[in-house]
Amino acid sequence: MNPVLGILGAGQLGRMLALEAHALGVPVRLLGEPDGSGAQVAATAEGSLDDADAIKRFARGCDVLTVETENVRVDALVDLPCPVWPPPAAIEASQDRVNEKRLFDRLGIPTAPWVPVASDEELAGAVEALGFPFVLKKRRSGFDGRGQVVVKARNEAVPAFRLLGEVPCIAEGFVRFDAELSVLVACPVRGARRVWPVARNVHYVGQLDYCTVLPNDPLQAEAAALGNRVADALGYVGVLTVETFVRGGALVANEIAPRVHNSGHWSIEGAVTSQFANHVRAVLGLPVGPTDAVACAATVNLLGSLPARGDVLAIPGAFFHGYGKSDRPGRKVGHATVLAPSVPRLHERLDRLRQVVGPRG
Amino acid sequence: MNPVLGILGAGQLGRMLALEAHALGVPVRLLGEPDGSGAQVAATAEGSLDDADAIKRFARGCDVLTVETENVRVDALVDLPCPVWPPPAAIEASQDRVNEKRLFDRLGIPTAPWVPVASDEELAGAVEALGFPFVLKKRRSGFDGRGQVVVKARNEAVPAFRLLGEVPCIAEGFVRFDAELSVLVACPVRGARRVWPVARNVHYVGQLDYCTVLPNDPLQAEAAALGNRVADALGYVGVLTVETFVRGGALVANEIAPRVHNSGHWSIEGAVTSQFANHVRAVLGLPVGPTDAVACAATVNLLGSLPARGDVLAIPGAFFHGYGKSDRPGRKVGHATVLAPSVPRLHERLDRLRQVVGPRG
Repeated sequence: MNPVLGILGAGQLGRMLALEAHALGVPVRLLGEPDGSGAQVAATAEGSLDDADAIKRFARGCDVLTVETENVRVDALVDLPCPVWPPPAAIEASQDRVNEKRLFDRLGIPTAPWVPVASDEELAGAVEALGFPFVLKKRRSGFDGRGQVVVKARNEAVPAFRLLGEVPCIAEGFVRFDAELSVLVACPVRGARRVWPVARNVHYVGQLDYCTVLPNDPLQAEAAALGNRVADALGYVGVLTVETFVRGGALVANEIAPRVHNSGHWSIEGAVTSQFANHVRAVLGLPVGPTDAVACAATVNLLGSLPARGDVLAIPGAFFHGYGKSDRPGRKVGHATVLAPSVPRLHERLDRLRQVVGPRG
Repeated sequence: MNPVLGILGAGQLGRMLALEAHALGVPVRLLGEPDGSGAQVAATAEGSLDDADAIKRFARGCDVLTVETENVRVDALVDLPCPVWPPPAAIEASQDRVNEKRLFDRLGIPTAPWVPVASDEELAGAVEALGFPFVLKKRRSGFDGRGQVVVKARNEAVPAFRLLGEVPCIAEGFVRFDAELSVLVACPVRGARRVWPVARNVHYVGQLDYCTVLPNDPLQAEAAALGNRVADALGYVGVLTVETFVRGGALVANEIAPRVHNSGHWSIEGAVTSQFANHVRAVLGLPVGPTDAVACAATVNLLGSLPARGDVLAIPGAFFHGYGKSDRPGRKVGHATVLAPSVPRLHERLDRLRQVVGPRG
């Protein structure tokens, strides 16, 4: 009747998930850093997500377990006394870029050409297969553009591999994309899935800078079908994110995030039900809510330090989110969303928002 | 830059205010019961709102202070080291039904006929002035229909006064109203106020049972003007609620709540900006957000015990809120809101919701 929800991770995604559990009146506990963003709003057990014992201990106090990050020791998620959603296999699939690509291949979903690279020999093979430029990425634990190097010429290949520590990598052909597009799917245990309107992202030095959600995206149906195919293959429960590139009017799959995602933050105010509310509902076995947009929306990451709240909120249709983090260059410390009744009005408000936010660390 | 918000009271209204402070990344502290609904989601200092020392101690750790209830020792709110919003005088005005009525009179706002009753002599005068039935209410500390008795005949008057402990009372002529209507006004420190679409309430044995918010209420403009007049008179900052009766197509003011209100819960999902978000913004000196409705809305109180979340959330457009309280007959333990694109659809969903909620304690 009143199950305890456990969340692995106590960052800002855990925080925003915990706030939705609070809204539902569902007791919630986090596992992570005691000074994490999430730890400020919910009971948090201190522990590393690499520590199988810590995870097992934590699970004993929970009735259902979920994650705010894919960077969790997945072998600790089996034989727990409570269900884990999304399924550990889905989390595992997303931890390794080669496995991810194999999954896309198996489902007939287009990706950039790719080659696994674990040795200098395989690296030489990748150079022949892909040409230049290509992107050399660690197979595991990369995010926000970290753990990857663009290789532009033959003599850069070996130094790039050395720079990444010669850990198992993947070499990916460089996709000259027109846009980056995220699709988020809310997958309940039973009943119909819901797909949010897709978000188109613009990156700034490798870290997501802002994204927009506009009505009637021409790739909505294709993206929804792609997201559903991945969710089917993974037996998915919770919110699933698939990041794609748009090239020549078609989607090229990039990666999977088995969780709520930065590109879904707009849904807090911009959709009938937010990604956080629907993830919590789904993992608790509850029906998910409508994902329709209530307006055109854009979200800007607040990096390094927060701007003055009053300056952001003076913009019509603007909403402010702080994560309770201390300042640090490049750190995601919050986000701001603007809603508008039309695309031109949205761009006007987004321009004002970007002026207020300014170039931040 | 990052002010600490202090909230006097740790019930469900404090809880929902605290969740909005968390969303903004504003540190928040509550003063109240350590096992209160709000204490589950934010740091809470134990203390009574009748205890001037506890309030003064609590205020030392805050940069701005607000309330979730008018039942607070108001003389403790002067000479604090931080601003208090709404103004203590506004809180005081709402604590005493006679003062409230005098305020309405001064502003030329219609009310039921009323007479202060502090003695058997005044009670006899009230009987002559008002006829039957009339309502005898304690001047102070009544809410949700408690602390009041309907007097239907001459021989009931003295027993009713005895029942109320012969404390200072007010006798009010019985308003045969067609509806009860609440108007909520978001009042920032600077800048334009915003008024939500009015909510019409239906009571069930004296406690608010459900309320609906429909487009183009014919009394919207009159209610907004009334709310603004009261806000002006009180120099108000924060969310102000005025409860009124509708009689013959006109408004009769009933009482003031210097705070967010049960009849505004629909705004969490049903309005662009909720009463909780705007109250937090206002008391922090930030601009308030748009109060437009995004759909037709209805909210039902969940009394006594929570229904199964899944049954509520299976209704299209339904949202569930639990307050983390233990079961107790008649206790407000949560609420559910349904949204719909049209009035007939809303009533259909509301009927389903009422079936799921059933007759609860």
